[in-house]
Amino acid sequence: MKLRAIVVVLILGAASAGADEGMWTFDAFPSAEVKARYGFEPTQQWLDRVRLASVRLAGGCSASFVSGAGLTMTNHHCIRACVMDLSSAENDYLAKGFKAGRLEDEKRCPGVEANQLVEMTDVTPRLQAATKGLAGAEFASASRAEMSKIESACATGEGVRCDVVTLFDGAKYQLYKYRRFQDVRLVFAPEFSMAAFGGDADNFNFPRYGFDAAFLRVWDGGKPLPTPVFLPWAKEPAKEGDLVFISGHPGGTERQATVAQLEFQRDVALPFTLLHLAELRGALREYASGDAERWRTTRAPLRSVENTLKSLRGRHQALADPGLLARFRQREAELRAKAEGPEAARAWDEIAASLASYRAFLPQYRLLEQELAFPSELFAIARILVRAADELPKPSADRLREFSDGRLPQLRQELLSEAPIVPGLEQVRTTFGLNKLRETLGADDAVVRAVLGRESPANLARTLVTTTKLGDVAERQRLWDGGRAAIDASQDPFIVLARTVDAASRDVRRRYEDTVEAVQRRSAPHLAQARRVAWGTTGYPDATFTLRLGFGTVAGWEEDGRRIPALTTFRGAYERHNGQEPFRLPDTWMGAQKDVDPEMPLDMSTTLDSVGGNSGSPVIDRRGEVVGLVFDGNIHSLGGRFAYVPERNRAVAVHGAGLLHGLKHVYHADRVLAEIASGAVQAP
Amino acid sequence: MKLRAIVVVLILGAASAGADEGMWTFDAFPSAEVKARYGFEPTQQWLDRVRLASVRLAGGCSASFVSGAGLTMTNHHCIRACVMDLSSAENDYLAKGFKAGRLEDEKRCPGVEANQLVEMTDVTPRLQAATKGLAGAEFASASRAEMSKIESACATGEGVRCDVVTLFDGAKYQLYKYRRFQDVRLVFAPEFSMAAFGGDADNFNFPRYGFDAAFLRVWDGGKPLPTPVFLPWAKEPAKEGDLVFISGHPGGTERQATVAQLEFQRDVALPFTLLHLAELRGALREYASGDAERWRTTRAPLRSVENTLKSLRGRHQALADPGLLARFRQREAELRAKAEGPEAARAWDEIAASLASYRAFLPQYRLLEQELAFPSELFAIARILVRAADELPKPSADRLREFSDGRLPQLRQELLSEAPIVPGLEQVRTTFGLNKLRETLGADDAVVRAVLGRESPANLARTLVTTTKLGDVAERQRLWDGGRAAIDASQDPFIVLARTVDAASRDVRRRYEDTVEAVQRRSAPHLAQARRVAWGTTGYPDATFTLRLGFGTVAGWEEDGRRIPALTTFRGAYERHNGQEPFRLPDTWMGAQKDVDPEMPLDMSTTLDSVGGNSGSPVIDRRGEVVGLVFDGNIHSLGGRFAYVPERNRAVAVHGAGLLHGLKHVYHADRVLAEIASGAVQAP
Repeated sequence: MKLRAIVVVLILGAASAGADEGMWTFDAFPSAEVKARYGFEPTQQWLDRVRLASVRLAGGCSASFVSGAGLTMTNHHCIRACVMDLSSAENDYLAKGFKAGRLEDEKRCPGVEANQLVEMTDVTPRLQAATKGLAGAEFASASRAEMSKIESACATGEGVRCDVVTLFDGAKYQLYKYRRFQDVRLVFAPEFSMAAFGGDADNFNFPRYGFDAAFLRVWDGGKPLPTPVFLPWAKEPAKEGDLVFISGHPGGTERQATVAQLEFQRDVALPFTLLHLAELRGALREYASGDAERWRTTRAPLRSVENTLKSLRGRHQALADPGLLARFRQREAELRAKAEGPEAARAWDEIAASLASYRAFLPQYRLLEQELAFPSELFAIARILVRAADELPKPSADRLREFSDGRLPQLRQELLSEAPIVPGLEQVRTTFGLNKLRETLGADDAVVRAVLGRESPANLARTLVTTTKLGDVAERQRLWDGGRAAIDASQDPFIVLARTVDAASRDVRRRYEDTVEAVQRRSAPHLAQARRVAWGTTGYPDATFTLRLGFGTVAGWEEDGRRIPALTTFRGAYERHNGQEPFRLPDTWMGAQKDVDPEMPLDMSTTLDSVGGNSGSPVIDRRGEVVGLVFDGNIHSLGGRFAYVPERNRAVAVHGAGLLHGLKHVYHADRVLAEIASGAVQAP
Repeated sequence: MKLRAIVVVLILGAASAGADEGMWTFDAFPSAEVKARYGFEPTQQWLDRVRLASVRLAGGCSASFVSGAGLTMTNHHCIRACVMDLSSAENDYLAKGFKAGRLEDEKRCPGVEANQLVEMTDVTPRLQAATKGLAGAEFASASRAEMSKIESACATGEGVRCDVVTLFDGAKYQLYKYRRFQDVRLVFAPEFSMAAFGGDADNFNFPRYGFDAAFLRVWDGGKPLPTPVFLPWAKEPAKEGDLVFISGHPGGTERQATVAQLEFQRDVALPFTLLHLAELRGALREYASGDAERWRTTRAPLRSVENTLKSLRGRHQALADPGLLARFRQREAELRAKAEGPEAARAWDEIAASLASYRAFLPQYRLLEQELAFPSELFAIARILVRAADELPKPSADRLREFSDGRLPQLRQELLSEAPIVPGLEQVRTTFGLNKLRETLGADDAVVRAVLGRESPANLARTLVTTTKLGDVAERQRLWDGGRAAIDASQDPFIVLARTVDAASRDVRRRYEDTVEAVQRRSAPHLAQARRVAWGTTGYPDATFTLRLGFGTVAGWEEDGRRIPALTTFRGAYERHNGQEPFRLPDTWMGAQKDVDPEMPLDMSTTLDSVGGNSGSPVIDRRGEVVGLVFDGNIHSLGGRFAYVPERNRAVAVHGAGLLHGLKHVYHADRVLAEIASGAVQAP
């Protein structure tokens, strides 16, 4: 019995168990275990420094301060949208890269928000008290209100962001207090083709040769933000076998999921999303191939779609492996046997029942509320405006979560972003979404009829995009300031569309929150309790795009009897170059071939436990110094959504020494290099 | 115990059980049961007449003779490719329809072969003797050779086609002897937009308003084929509750599948194909939207992709319903308990094990051998030529099955078809396939490297399509006649491509046949025996695109508490018209609105058990007369791949009276109408 439990734990990571597994919160890092395995125990001071040097990019990435003046390292793919937004047909920074020669040449990224985690407080008792004895809609609304209340009380100004964070699916709640920065500027970006060398073909593959790095700077009050706590660059380059750490924001895992939740993902949720994305990819790729300007404006969003598609496909394949489900089934049987009391015993069945009913309305939820039917920037803007008119007059605690006082700054930044909107792309996406809406819900569905009337999706999309005024930021500001009266009076076709679908969309959201999310959160404490009884620990919480620390080593793996080495070199990149996208090295690299050391490491594979959201995380050594920059996982890491497999799960990083080598010999980014070396802003 | 078995049978159709279920071979039709249920028992003469009046279109559809002079009724969507092939930018018959004013105006369809089933002989003992004691590769090759031998001995000329048909997954083998006709001409086709009114949005939906009908004529020796046995048109129109029959060629079902086979479909095979098709659809749709000529040439293949996609998606959803799998599991447990002897007991596990290993090479099999990586007409031609050079010198029994003497005529017809090849479309598809090849197998795969070299998919596709000479039928004839020497000497890029991938493709085909197909066929007799023991019958065999007869009634169904009536009317079509594709009625219909009877039935729903391949099947009454033309199933019928659900599974047909009404008042197809009325060819 004991042996079997250990095997399961080892494979499924229900608790720390001798593998380099875990996405640990900073307040519960297993330092003793790291010491036992690697002879190094991080001190509290070490942990605090790493935490404060870690940066969250609120759009969905990780980053870190690497100088005392707000210089921030992340992946190119994390700021691809910014590079795109700053580009034009004449100045295509996505194609040719960007390098600010002087401090004043750094360009502000529209829509990028950076967060620094300064405080974590347990608020579980408050949430439990507020929802005691409640279920369904009452549980959901009490829980929402209490979270908003806690956040509002904490967020004392625009420079502070407070999020109530749900951990262990709702068994634990914490208040995370961040410093919030919205003036984030682009300092350096390589060519997109180099950042993503190998394209979709090599994405999630290794050996790999990407230079997926970029530098930003956080500004505050018109000056570089002083960041006394930052990560210096390591003098010692990382080599195979070294102990390393990752500090970043893994986006989401389902390692504690119930069997019903996994089957729902495998059979319903993932197929729905995958088919949607696959078709969208086909459409965008064909659209982009039309001409150079279409290619310029579409390649970045296309890449995002392709990345998500490949990643979700990996997840689906992991779930389609009967072994994985069998191990979850076995674990669940053990846990159920430990459940205490009748309510706990019902928890698994209640989750299963809620998902069975969710099946019937998942398409509506995805299409309407999650905007798969309206995948355009313009609709997103229109929806914010229409909902703001309804929500802002209410007390903060009664609003939709994203309109609560604490969250408004991010929303307003998105709304008032000066990022250019590309009409052609908007039209393709809008047509696509409207077609999906009609074909999924059927031509006779009430919402479909209300949206389309007697119009075709393509015609309606053309009208929407060509006649809306929402491309103009001043008009958005006017509608925001004008509130309900302005929205009611507006005849802008996107405002009309957002108004038309709002009731149905809110309905299905409420249904989701009341009958799916609330059930899961209510059940979570029982599941956590069963884990504590069965294993003596609840392990680390599933990832939720909050700051986590992990440990591991620089290491390759075995595949079909072959050993995949941990490091690739600059030489390898030149060998892989074939002159054709996506295997075409940019001119900078071709020109610098004589200057670079071919044996210099370029990318590296590590056992660090990471998932999407960790992109941009620094890889640091035991001194707390930078030895790499995570930008991907290997193909096996896609199954890491559900289980970390020590033998094969790998995080992929740009090697720290290679990163500096490229900055120096390929890009001559001397200002960045000098700042990294000295820790202080350099005169140009 | 008894009760439970009956419920399972009722739901899963393991045997006839009181529902209108079953795709019965003509030599085992349950006439007595029909008599018991409906008071009518088809005589042997009735069955023979219906069988001889039934036509198989070898490309994948059903049809029937409706005059004594070879006039053949089928669906428009069954001859869409022909209409397309006969069209040009100037004469777009797909858009405006086609009507041959005189006999001599009927246009020959390139690549259409019609078959009439004249004889069925049991050959199970021959196959069993030939494969006795064998397994794996030996079983597969002995089985292939014996089938080819039987077919060759039977096929005494080009006018005869003989297929050894696998029934019950290999528990039974029959030799089907057909008359083969390759001179099939187009007589009448409505507009594509009317045949497919409602487009993809309404496909598999009901109420429905499609006029998905077309008429061909089988010619023989330069004259209309005399067809003394044909289906006359019923004088009495079908009405709700009437007993009706369907005679046609259902393409494939998996109602006798094992749980492992269904899980494999749900988790591996269907997701792979679905994602491929979804992306292809996105690409084709976007490509087609480029200009009018692209739209003209792409809409028909696009529609085929969309139809398959929607249909496979329905299958996946049926399998994702946990109830369906649970019932199959229960049934399988019962059957396993009845298995006789150790070999029989192993049958289920052997199938499961073979599928577990198939997982690893399904992508290769689909991409290379099933040509998902090479979805162009030109590649298909090149592959036939390259393989013919290898295969034709061998004795017939040793060749790949499709090159055996009995099958050559269909292959040669495909190869030498004068159907136009559209370079733009070929290029889009070729690029798509090559991209899929690289991304699925990886840039470092040996086949990928051999195919692409240092080229990009888009560049290679352009070179292939613009420099090949295979668009020229004379060149194909030359390479066919020239055999191995001509193929070896050819530098045609498509020939080179087909040569390059052939070894790998044959390897993976062999692996599939030896380790998956052979295991299934070897296990089939044991499974069938268990069914006989458990239920006293093996029921009807799973569909295999061979002639079947089914029975049922004209009936709607209940959906969410609403009654869906069995018939729609012409009025409904006019009401659904909104002026925008796919809900735009063509000008003929708009102009005829004053002449048609709005209450005339247009489409109808029936309980007939049908699947893809049944398209074009006649609906006939107890007199053996035409009362309709099946062209679709409702959305629930998509789950009919696995189980017929009497309450909801419906086949959708053009109503017989409505069909004549439309021919008369909308299309003024007087020659067709007169021939149907008299049974004989009419003077113009």
